[in-house]
Amino acid sequence: MAALYLIPVTLGDTPLDNVLPSANHDVIVRIRHFIVEEIRSARRFLKQTDKSIDIDTLTFYPMGKHADKALFSKYLDPLRNGVDMGIISEAGCPAIADPGADVVAIAQSEGLKVVPLVGPSSILMSLMASGFNGQQFAFHGYLPVGSHERQTALRNLEATSHAHNQTQIFIETPYRNHQMIDNIISVCRPTTKLCIAAGITCGDNEFIQTKTIRQWRNEKSSVPDLRKTPAIFLIYAGQD
Amino acid sequence: MAALYLIPVTLGDTPLDNVLPSANHDVIVRIRHFIVEEIRSARRFLKQTDKSIDIDTLTFYPMGKHADKALFSKYLDPLRNGVDMGIISEAGCPAIADPGADVVAIAQSEGLKVVPLVGPSSILMSLMASGFNGQQFAFHGYLPVGSHERQTALRNLEATSHAHNQTQIFIETPYRNHQMIDNIISVCRPTTKLCIAAGITCGDNEFIQTKTIRQWRNEKSSVPDLRKTPAIFLIYAGQD
Repeated sequence: MAALYLIPVTLGDTPLDNVLPSANHDVIVRIRHFIVEEIRSARRFLKQTDKSIDIDTLTFYPMGKHADKALFSKYLDPLRNGVDMGIISEAGCPAIADPGADVVAIAQSEGLKVVPLVGPSSILMSLMASGFNGQQFAFHGYLPVGSHERQTALRNLEATSHAHNQTQIFIETPYRNHQMIDNIISVCRPTTKLCIAAGITCGDNEFIQTKTIRQWRNEKSSVPDLRKTPAIFLIYAGQD
Repeated sequence: MAALYLIPVTLGDTPLDNVLPSANHDVIVRIRHFIVEEIRSARRFLKQTDKSIDIDTLTFYPMGKHADKALFSKYLDPLRNGVDMGIISEAGCPAIADPGADVVAIAQSEGLKVVPLVGPSSILMSLMASGFNGQQFAFHGYLPVGSHERQTALRNLEATSHAHNQTQIFIETPYRNHQMIDNIISVCRPTTKLCIAAGITCGDNEFIQTKTIRQWRNEKSSVPDLRKTPAIFLIYAGQD
């Protein structure tokens, strides 16, 4: 039975073998129809996967920010006709903090087969390395940008973490990472813990550190320059 | 700098190359101290990773259910002395719905380096393939077993999913999977969606299907026998 394969990519500049199982390669080289967030980077990823792939014979269907969602159902025609397809997003796993879920939902609603492949997820990897509760956690995407709304959001996350013993995870655009860190350490309580995780899987640029808010206030200078590095933030105010 | 590596394993009976990057192998063969959920299966995994590993020269530290948590800090002495260590749990990624977080928390509190490796996570992979919202989601581990408490928990998850547009994810022990499915389809509203994901990454045994509660009520017979298959459940009552 033909399937819609969810194909993870790297989280940054790292060799594919570091973060993708070799079996992904064998799936990818059989696929000729790709629904992608950005065609240029998907082409580059496929070339990295296997130099012998003839990119110009493949069909790409855009699903990024400016794509017309009304076309998504039509994209799946090859799959409906028994032909494998793939979904590729810009970083990590499609459909998680990244586009793809709309297309998958259409496939699922028609009983088409969907097969997720293994790859890096900054959410999962930062949670593993944080030391925080991995039995209960929530991911919130981006928090509000406005200063009052953000303060409220952070206070709510801290309270929820405490009440439900639940790790709270969220992201920020790189150029606002340091502002986010300042917001967290000024709003949260001294005993709450914050894990800052950046450059995950990117070797020497990987930074994953957990400290209490009190410690971060004293050791803010230990945070590297994250203005251009994708980062993820985890707070935990539960019972240890 | 020496590191505590978080080493994922397979989610069931599947070749390592299907779900683990080849770089994990290169990290693993350098490590001689492993903190593990179960020594026997960790040994088997290491032998599968590389036949040439001399298992009897390695040191294993138990962190499973019956382990004495008071010893966990002492386990990290090799790491404190500049020697790499690894953490291995029974299935998928350590510290996520699996032991390991306690040990990681100790390492983080001392500023020791923690490095997560890529591997399969049933939570992430089921979310990718569900078609549900991957921008906001929560994982709850096990729900209460008692019938009244469970009904309340399911109603709360459904209400939270609707109010916050958040995918709700939870697990069950295999022998109670069918009871859980019955509970969900009797408690939740007809328009709420349920994704049942089982045997993830295990080839022909992989079953990942999303339907509305109404559809599941009519097509319950389409669910395969899951009494011995690890499964994960996702419900979504948000805005599509």
